Amino acid sequence: MTLHLADVTEEELLARIVPLLQGPDARVLVGPGDDTAWLTAGDGRYLATTDAMVRGHDWIDEWSTGEDVGHKTVAQNLADIAAMGGVPTGLLLTLAADPRTPVSWCEDLARGIGCAARAAGTSAVGGDLSGADAGTVMVSVTAFGSMEGRRPVLRSGARVGDVVAVAGTLGRSAAGWALLREERGAVAPDLVQAHLRPAPPLAQGPAAARHGAHAMIDLSDGLVRDAGRIARASGVVLALTTDLLHDDVAALAAVVGEEAALDCILTGGEEHSLLATFADEESLPQGWRVIGRVEDAGDTRGGMLVDGTPRSGGGWDHFDASR
Amino acid sequence: MTLHLADVTEEELLARIVPLLQGPDARVLVGPGDDTAWLTAGDGRYLATTDAMVRGHDWIDEWSTGEDVGHKTVAQNLADIAAMGGVPTGLLLTLAADPRTPVSWCEDLARGIGCAARAAGTSAVGGDLSGADAGTVMVSVTAFGSMEGRRPVLRSGARVGDVVAVAGTLGRSAAGWALLREERGAVAPDLVQAHLRPAPPLAQGPAAARHGAHAMIDLSDGLVRDAGRIARASGVVLALTTDLLHDDVAALAAVVGEEAALDCILTGGEEHSLLATFADEESLPQGWRVIGRVEDAGDTRGGMLVDGTPRSGGGWDHFDASR
Repeated sequence: MTLHLADVTEEELLARIVPLLQGPDARVLVGPGDDTAWLTAGDGRYLATTDAMVRGHDWIDEWSTGEDVGHKTVAQNLADIAAMGGVPTGLLLTLAADPRTPVSWCEDLARGIGCAARAAGTSAVGGDLSGADAGTVMVSVTAFGSMEGRRPVLRSGARVGDVVAVAGTLGRSAAGWALLREERGAVAPDLVQAHLRPAPPLAQGPAAARHGAHAMIDLSDGLVRDAGRIARASGVVLALTTDLLHDDVAALAAVVGEEAALDCILTGGEEHSLLATFADEESLPQGWRVIGRVEDAGDTRGGMLVDGTPRSGGGWDHFDASR
Repeated sequence: MTLHLADVTEEELLARIVPLLQGPDARVLVGPGDDTAWLTAGDGRYLATTDAMVRGHDWIDEWSTGEDVGHKTVAQNLADIAAMGGVPTGLLLTLAADPRTPVSWCEDLARGIGCAARAAGTSAVGGDLSGADAGTVMVSVTAFGSMEGRRPVLRSGARVGDVVAVAGTLGRSAAGWALLREERGAVAPDLVQAHLRPAPPLAQGPAAARHGAHAMIDLSDGLVRDAGRIARASGVVLALTTDLLHDDVAALAAVVGEEAALDCILTGGEEHSLLATFADEESLPQGWRVIGRVEDAGDTRGGMLVDGTPRSGGGWDHFDASR
């Protein structure tokens, strides 16, 4: 018989999941169990970001286990911390769920969150539980980070003449998603895994900050769309060159075809790799590669060029009813 | 024609709601619009807590406007900051909503959040938007705070011989909720207001900390249940005396009857007043009143007495299907 949330008290549920979430973290002065958490901010400042996942919208149970969801929600949030150039220092979790949700699913979720957090050197420090309508499960994570005395790398710092560079993979999450939709996941389980459990290059965020990156963002909504955010925030044009994406295309083309590969790379979301601009190619830390240049926006507000042609991005809108 | 979330882009929605959320706050170094917020922690440490509200579970549209929900979700979170003895320094927001949700409801929500935050001297510094199933609306807030160089007042610090004291009202939210259920809200609009827009005594949290409170909690799930959390965390007995609640009972009895009044006071949730223990009556800041004493737990793990009789609390369980 399956045990559901309605069958246990909140105290019993917490006794099951809190141990799965925790890890050693000297920055946590007061952890779960009081009215709030209390955390250290060594340099007197802290980063904070939040990102939610909703069943049926951000995952479906046919493809994702609770552990997958836990890994992915942590990856999404920690990629935002990395995209400022910070290191993660703690997580708060919210679970709003149908009382008929199996307790075992929640334990799997906690296992995934705890595992992904510990791999990044951090842990959960508190959270909240709430009931929800039949069928609804929502997981919301707030992540904290430290710049360790540095200044954050904003979206607005790109300068004309910069190189545009990326750390991590491109298009693999979108390609994995396409395979799942086509029921061809067995063809490339590594791509499916990239979609279900993205593994952002978290250490490359602080590395880029130390190497003087001018602007940075994580690729959550697609390369062109997210690069466009740097372009508009900085009032410049980011000009990408598909020749420089040749290896990325080749790696995917064998599985999804050349045209779809380039589309996954330019518009595919949820990759959570890092995009940054640097003064020149010599400034790049190891693990970064150039994919374009920053150009003058003239009298426009800034935007994107792909091989010289304007592109507006495509990608994801959470409330788009036309999907 | 009603404009719904599906009719606007995320950028358009943000352009409408972000201005409603903001306020002047010198502690915000990087606010909405980048990958994360960046906040100052003057004493090198910060408080963080999160609390969510779900439509149909934590509010119903028949009773609560979007502005009410905004006020209440901020009040709940800032009461947790106050219950540590801290002052609020920032908020992160998550809205997961059915694309058919009216844009005007979201603007009302933002107006309520912004208003309640500014009244407490803080503002929203970032957030996240997500789609959700038909009918689902979920608002999650993460609040930050500062102890301003003090140490937080934990649940675990109550000592035998302490006085038990409360700041703020008791039972008014539960009484207002009862009136709404009985369709008698017009009898006492102030009680209905106490339920829809609780106004916690936020300044009393730092005041209690400055006056050396030993233990503190905010009353979110009912006086006996929340006091029981201090009792068990501290390994003591909190002994409440209903004679000391005479004025609270009298204030409600005229509207809901004497028996229901005492029940609202002892077990009613969502009041968000503050409960603390102090070494003696002389230690209380102005605005606090004694309602009991801390006694030895003997060989028990601690618990509650009301007029000498053990009480286990009642109150709220989010996943209780028997409601």
